[in-house]
Amino acid sequence: MARRQITGFSNPTVKYLRSLREKKHRKAAGKVLAEGLRLLTDARESGKVPEVLVMAEGRDPHPLLAELEAAVDAAGGEIIETSDDILAKITGKSNPQAVAGVFAEWDSSLAALDRSDAQIWLVAQALRDPGNLGTMLRTGDAVGAGGLILIDDCADLFSVEAVRASMGAVFTQQVAMARWEEFLPWLRAGEGQLVAASLRDAVPYRGAPYTAPCFILVGNESQGLPEDYEMACDLRVTMPMRGRADSLNAAVAGAVLAYEVLASLEG
Amino acid sequence: MARRQITGFSNPTVKYLRSLREKKHRKAAGKVLAEGLRLLTDARESGKVPEVLVMAEGRDPHPLLAELEAAVDAAGGEIIETSDDILAKITGKSNPQAVAGVFAEWDSSLAALDRSDAQIWLVAQALRDPGNLGTMLRTGDAVGAGGLILIDDCADLFSVEAVRASMGAVFTQQVAMARWEEFLPWLRAGEGQLVAASLRDAVPYRGAPYTAPCFILVGNESQGLPEDYEMACDLRVTMPMRGRADSLNAAVAGAVLAYEVLASLEG
Repeated sequence: MARRQITGFSNPTVKYLRSLREKKHRKAAGKVLAEGLRLLTDARESGKVPEVLVMAEGRDPHPLLAELEAAVDAAGGEIIETSDDILAKITGKSNPQAVAGVFAEWDSSLAALDRSDAQIWLVAQALRDPGNLGTMLRTGDAVGAGGLILIDDCADLFSVEAVRASMGAVFTQQVAMARWEEFLPWLRAGEGQLVAASLRDAVPYRGAPYTAPCFILVGNESQGLPEDYEMACDLRVTMPMRGRADSLNAAVAGAVLAYEVLASLEG
Repeated sequence: MARRQITGFSNPTVKYLRSLREKKHRKAAGKVLAEGLRLLTDARESGKVPEVLVMAEGRDPHPLLAELEAAVDAAGGEIIETSDDILAKITGKSNPQAVAGVFAEWDSSLAALDRSDAQIWLVAQALRDPGNLGTMLRTGDAVGAGGLILIDDCADLFSVEAVRASMGAVFTQQVAMARWEEFLPWLRAGEGQLVAASLRDAVPYRGAPYTAPCFILVGNESQGLPEDYEMACDLRVTMPMRGRADSLNAAVAGAVLAYEVLASLEG
């Protein structure tokens, strides 16, 4: 049982944990930082146990925390106890959640995806807002999607912000990252309908001929999808735009479409 | 034509403008700060002209900027030119958009709302994320809603974050703020169906008997709606939840429901 206490702000482990909030350091370390008992419990129930668990000293006992500690011990992980102040420094919040965990980043290659797992998949192209990525994961969980595929340069799916916005779905949904040039041949090597919201040569999104597995493609927050990406889709659909704007928030557009596809496929 | 240049970081106007990013100061001043030519043009086209326009010196000429300057001049407003550095200090961004505007906050009383204006209204209860509020405004614009009503203690709808996330809809959608105790009597004093996503005594959201004007109520991000608020609704609907979680992001839930109501009312 690996347990230790950290009492100094300048402890290298404190610096290391704090550095995981920055994309560069997080990626280089190949780790994922998640905060809060609920999120860490979601992870555990999904079979993902942190390598390192950091807890505030003197926290209230909680059965879920006890289960988490047991799981970390059983997996040979490390448990660190520290003060509220140091935990606040690690999490960058004045009112830190009393527990944080560090996970080894998991496989996010396209080759590891099993498209037969689900009828719906979400695909995000160059999304820059980690909150939008997390929200798409959460929506994917809700519609029973298989997972989220990130195309081109997206925000960091394993950032603290995205993990938090996913409400645990980052641990349950499959995730993959690929360039468009890799994704399209992969998609075409098997069954799959690629669908995008579009204004080009599109049909109304309600009652459109969706087929499973349906891959719902959502484009960058400000640019939308490149035209050639849209034209590579099997189906382009439009959503009503009754106001001045011609687009929705990316995560919202994906969700409205995903619920329509779900209703259509379960019809 | 009121124009002046500001060259010093410690200029009181710079401090004042910068203070408007904080809720406390923004509210006390009764002003709304918005950044970016597109957003300010949306405002102008909706009849809202900034009292103060702040621009970077040496910016490229742009016909929309020229129109904006003319509108501010015509309305007796002030135009301030300053350096990129000072603009960055005001906006708190290293790469500031070249223009920002300060508006007088407008009327957000329930009494000013005209429910006959639209078939759909969005209602947010205790939403704490300004991005969610902005996203709901943007969705409201898209579905042709009349506006957004904030119930109880919500995030600041006129914050820079909410204004930005609204993509200009904060200028076109009607907005009102009220306590639940004010809102419910106001609602019941006229026509209106109050609808919430709920797990209590609810019917499937697809094909539910929506009627106009339909008020779609979305609850707090972590607590959801209080039970008595849900029970005061005319219609409670459920959305499929196929995964581990039992809820969607608040702005996403509102959007999926709003698009369903739109399809139903137009059906």
